[in-house]
Amino acid sequence: MRLTTVRTTTGTQAARLDNERLTAIDALDVGRLLKNPDWRAIAEATPVTGGLGSVHDASLAPLIPMPPKIVCVGINYADHVAEMSAPTPERPTLFAKFSRALVGPNDPIVIPAVASDAIDWEAELAVVIGSHGRHLDEPGARRAIAGYTAANDVSARDWQFATMQWLSGKTFEHTTPLGPVLVTGDEVDHAADLEIVCEVDGIVKQRSRTSHLIFTPDRLVAHVSSILTLEPGDLILTGTPNGVGWARTPPECLVAGSRVTTRIEGIGTLRNVCIVEELTTSTPPASAATTD
Amino acid sequence: MRLTTVRTTTGTQAARLDNERLTAIDALDVGRLLKNPDWRAIAEATPVTGGLGSVHDASLAPLIPMPPKIVCVGINYADHVAEMSAPTPERPTLFAKFSRALVGPNDPIVIPAVASDAIDWEAELAVVIGSHGRHLDEPGARRAIAGYTAANDVSARDWQFATMQWLSGKTFEHTTPLGPVLVTGDEVDHAADLEIVCEVDGIVKQRSRTSHLIFTPDRLVAHVSSILTLEPGDLILTGTPNGVGWARTPPECLVAGSRVTTRIEGIGTLRNVCIVEELTTSTPPASAATTD
Repeated sequence: MRLTTVRTTTGTQAARLDNERLTAIDALDVGRLLKNPDWRAIAEATPVTGGLGSVHDASLAPLIPMPPKIVCVGINYADHVAEMSAPTPERPTLFAKFSRALVGPNDPIVIPAVASDAIDWEAELAVVIGSHGRHLDEPGARRAIAGYTAANDVSARDWQFATMQWLSGKTFEHTTPLGPVLVTGDEVDHAADLEIVCEVDGIVKQRSRTSHLIFTPDRLVAHVSSILTLEPGDLILTGTPNGVGWARTPPECLVAGSRVTTRIEGIGTLRNVCIVEELTTSTPPASAATTD
Repeated sequence: MRLTTVRTTTGTQAARLDNERLTAIDALDVGRLLKNPDWRAIAEATPVTGGLGSVHDASLAPLIPMPPKIVCVGINYADHVAEMSAPTPERPTLFAKFSRALVGPNDPIVIPAVASDAIDWEAELAVVIGSHGRHLDEPGARRAIAGYTAANDVSARDWQFATMQWLSGKTFEHTTPLGPVLVTGDEVDHAADLEIVCEVDGIVKQRSRTSHLIFTPDRLVAHVSSILTLEPGDLILTGTPNGVGWARTPPECLVAGSRVTTRIEGIGTLRNVCIVEELTTSTPPASAATTD
């Protein structure tokens, strides 16, 4: 089964995708659908009408517009470990991203005005959580996974490495494409061995397989659940393979007009063009200030 | 003005605190109150009845139970920089925390079963955002601040330092006390020079002043707003002064029964006793699995 979140004139709408036709499901987006413990039965039982038209005509939102948590994993492909000159990790390196970083699968990637010289690509398999879970073993972790999707953890390397902590360079507004669909595990053998590719302007920059992940989705989900409770709609971005721009000689980066294509076998393709942020200030009115 | 979030038999309730008496405000918690652009006028206009009783009899929830973002700042007191042998930062070191880490101002701190040997205290001033803001200058940042509260960024040092990224050791479930009240800037001179103290079992471990912050609240808010849009209910934990257990000779840590008191002048006191997590698995039912 394939689920997606479609933009409508009034907001968004969860939908099922069957042979490129979209059928509305009774939820505003896939994240809210997953909050219903019966989400799978509800989505499966929805009669296919194709009433929302072709997916090619649709405007797709970030698959999960407001995940309760976005947990990202660094250093999780053996080949990427080598290119970043990092030691092979004994446990997952985790960092976070905020939901304001997300954009839809065909939306622009917004290059921040304050960090425009070192924007890099990172194609990633993303795991979508479908139920609550804490202290899960790997079989329990697999049951907690609703499905899989694609993301690009676009990173501002200058900000990422300006301090010891990467968050600043990883969560710029409107930089992380997510989607196009959630694919349930039965359709893709639980993402055990899918090709993952990132192209920039039609040139392949990253090409690997999810079988090269150091920590598998099941293991990552189990690990994160030892820290805190996983919830429906949580995302785990599982890390990127080798071929990032930062590690190339000379280094490469995304600029205005760069066309970034992120493709995972069996899941789908993100197609995002880079634009540079127009610097505008959004400031609270003076009347919101205290009167002292 | 002082605002807090009180637990009720059916959930939570935002309240105004006047002379130790609580009056209900029309919102389920302070986070939801702040989503209303007129929150300040609404809270000020609420007639004081004290109808929710004395704050001393109340069960207080985390001040903002579900912040859209929790941004934490490391290395932000000159004295703490020295004890952690870190260089003086040129820009703020940011990392994240998820809302499941939060507990109320008098709740237990839950020492994780998987990380019980290196749990440390970190008393911190927290900034609560009251309006949307992006690319703010410092005056705009100040207007975006709803008020100030106290937090303790309790950290599992073994997990924090097991990888390059601190998130894992900073976001264990039910480890971060937050509250007891939001105090508006007019009452505390915008937190410019407040004493901040952490005691463990009655012994002072940290004592500093917010005037020693390297990056002030206004500057931090402006900085974060250069990365992404701030929203009502967002939290910025501004960093901890010297005196953490990890940097002591020999190192000290919190154990079951440790009484942690976090006090900020003009804001209030968090009183939290450490308990050790009872390891229980919360696993999705097998029926939630795919059928393949």
